[in-house]
Amino acid sequence: MNRQWVLDSYPQGAATEETWRMIETDMPQPGPGQIVVRTKWLSLDPYQRGRINPAANYTAGVAPGGVMHGGGVGEVVTSNHPNWAVGDLAESMAVGWQEFSVLTPDVPGAGATNRVPEGIPPQACLSWMGMPGLTAFVGLTEMGRPLPGETVVVSAAGGAVGQLVGQIAKLMGARVVGIAGDDAKLAHCRNIGFDVTINYKTCGDLDAALSEACPEGVDVFWDNTGGPIHDAVLSQLAFFARVIICGRIAVVNKAPHEDIGIRASSRLIVTRASTHGLIVFDWWHKRDIAMRFLRKWYEAGHITFREDVLDGFESVPKAFVRMMAGENQGKALVRL
Amino acid sequence: MNRQWVLDSYPQGAATEETWRMIETDMPQPGPGQIVVRTKWLSLDPYQRGRINPAANYTAGVAPGGVMHGGGVGEVVTSNHPNWAVGDLAESMAVGWQEFSVLTPDVPGAGATNRVPEGIPPQACLSWMGMPGLTAFVGLTEMGRPLPGETVVVSAAGGAVGQLVGQIAKLMGARVVGIAGDDAKLAHCRNIGFDVTINYKTCGDLDAALSEACPEGVDVFWDNTGGPIHDAVLSQLAFFARVIICGRIAVVNKAPHEDIGIRASSRLIVTRASTHGLIVFDWWHKRDIAMRFLRKWYEAGHITFREDVLDGFESVPKAFVRMMAGENQGKALVRL
Repeated sequence: MNRQWVLDSYPQGAATEETWRMIETDMPQPGPGQIVVRTKWLSLDPYQRGRINPAANYTAGVAPGGVMHGGGVGEVVTSNHPNWAVGDLAESMAVGWQEFSVLTPDVPGAGATNRVPEGIPPQACLSWMGMPGLTAFVGLTEMGRPLPGETVVVSAAGGAVGQLVGQIAKLMGARVVGIAGDDAKLAHCRNIGFDVTINYKTCGDLDAALSEACPEGVDVFWDNTGGPIHDAVLSQLAFFARVIICGRIAVVNKAPHEDIGIRASSRLIVTRASTHGLIVFDWWHKRDIAMRFLRKWYEAGHITFREDVLDGFESVPKAFVRMMAGENQGKALVRL
Repeated sequence: MNRQWVLDSYPQGAATEETWRMIETDMPQPGPGQIVVRTKWLSLDPYQRGRINPAANYTAGVAPGGVMHGGGVGEVVTSNHPNWAVGDLAESMAVGWQEFSVLTPDVPGAGATNRVPEGIPPQACLSWMGMPGLTAFVGLTEMGRPLPGETVVVSAAGGAVGQLVGQIAKLMGARVVGIAGDDAKLAHCRNIGFDVTINYKTCGDLDAALSEACPEGVDVFWDNTGGPIHDAVLSQLAFFARVIICGRIAVVNKAPHEDIGIRASSRLIVTRASTHGLIVFDWWHKRDIAMRFLRKWYEAGHITFREDVLDGFESVPKAFVRMMAGENQGKALVRL
């Protein structure tokens, strides 16, 4: 028999142990090229909360009655695949919350089945050698790119991703500030090299604690929580800061109708959107190329431009007030 | 005599015509290498509102009693510079709200003095051949990078930057949706090639209007306004959208104590910050390189990792609930 945890019903707010029920089904049978593994380790990760929402997320969710999604490590018990033998250890995001699962080793990408490397604890494939490790690695090396001496702030610092972000950022030469709500987690963070830790539940004034921890501002913010911590760190970004919006555990449990304020992080994660602050004065070195194109487009008739002209030096403040009120039709100018 | 508009006092909320007062001073005298120009055109731009706030912004502001900052075009009336002759036309951000100003032609960067090119109306140096043109050009070519067929949404579409963003985005092959609060502005936008326009004041339901105008979502959002329009467009971003936060005219007038909701756009502009949504499943092609580094760092003792293990298949929902409540110390795992 195969025991499975299936979704009982979509949770309102936080999931509880009653969100799932255990069922027993027949042992699964492998098709050609497939293997059956007996689950040895299962990984619990915040992304899984998003899989049990009725609303669309970045990937298909679990419907009530379906086996809960999740990554795990299993030992091969049946193999129809020439490269996999009984007793091999496999890691896959496609295991799910069940004692036995059928895996298709040749699927590429995030559903892939990987061999557990020799010489590491098998469960490392679910943590620092697995999905959380990849998350921290690409987020820091491709997006955050901290330079030596820059300040990196990590929320949910003691979590699977947070621990790794802090340690990799230290290897890259950054100062690391960790935020969490539990002194034991923060003691662990300091033990593994975080320079400063902040307990957002007990520090009193988070803005003041951040300001003290980051006197030159925050160069890289790794956001695992969203919510009020996100707001506080954003208010102390340094020039040309990079923000990696990786999680939103502070707001993910909220029911759709609950007021969580105007916070875009859910949509910014799901869409992988990037935002850029634009100050044209940083780009003056591009002026010549810009003007060459703009003039060419203008002379070809591709660009027309409307002006809103007031006359006389006396009218300058009036023109400004008109422009700020949106009453101008086109570029606001004063002709003397 | 030289007439000047000087800041009378910092405005609370919107500036009014009484925010400035006109004074008369002596004609300015040029030093070595300098020129004096008689102002012919002055440019009014929303960034100027930020210059008359007491709070620090991205550049130094105007103190009460000081001449208001602003770009303009002037005709040379005195020259101590070998390359500039009386009668030449100069454009500079350093003109200010005054009839005569002293310019130093050899200053580089944003304070530079540029010769007005032949063959264009001189005031074009304040619009499509000037700072608004450079803004639209670099924001689209360096940050937004719309591909042919993508949808670009522009707020304050009829303004100096908005008009150009729409036209350049069309040249790049994009569909362009313009938002403004004035039918005359929007008619102009349609005349110059915008595909769809939305009057946010009269459309009734902005979310519905956006959804109809952008059935596949918003690929590039050029935000000139901040505020509720920003919120509405962010809620309809497409996958891998790019957001250029260029202005915040909807909230710039608010006094510091006014509640504008939790909106980060001011800080994101001032710091030129970039934000990135991270979904690790997009990065599976980086898995091998990530694992190679992670293992090397682990074996060198640079990475340690804490696990929070529960035993038994029965405990999976309990482990999930613990993890979501933050009660786990380290990576949440279940061992079967």
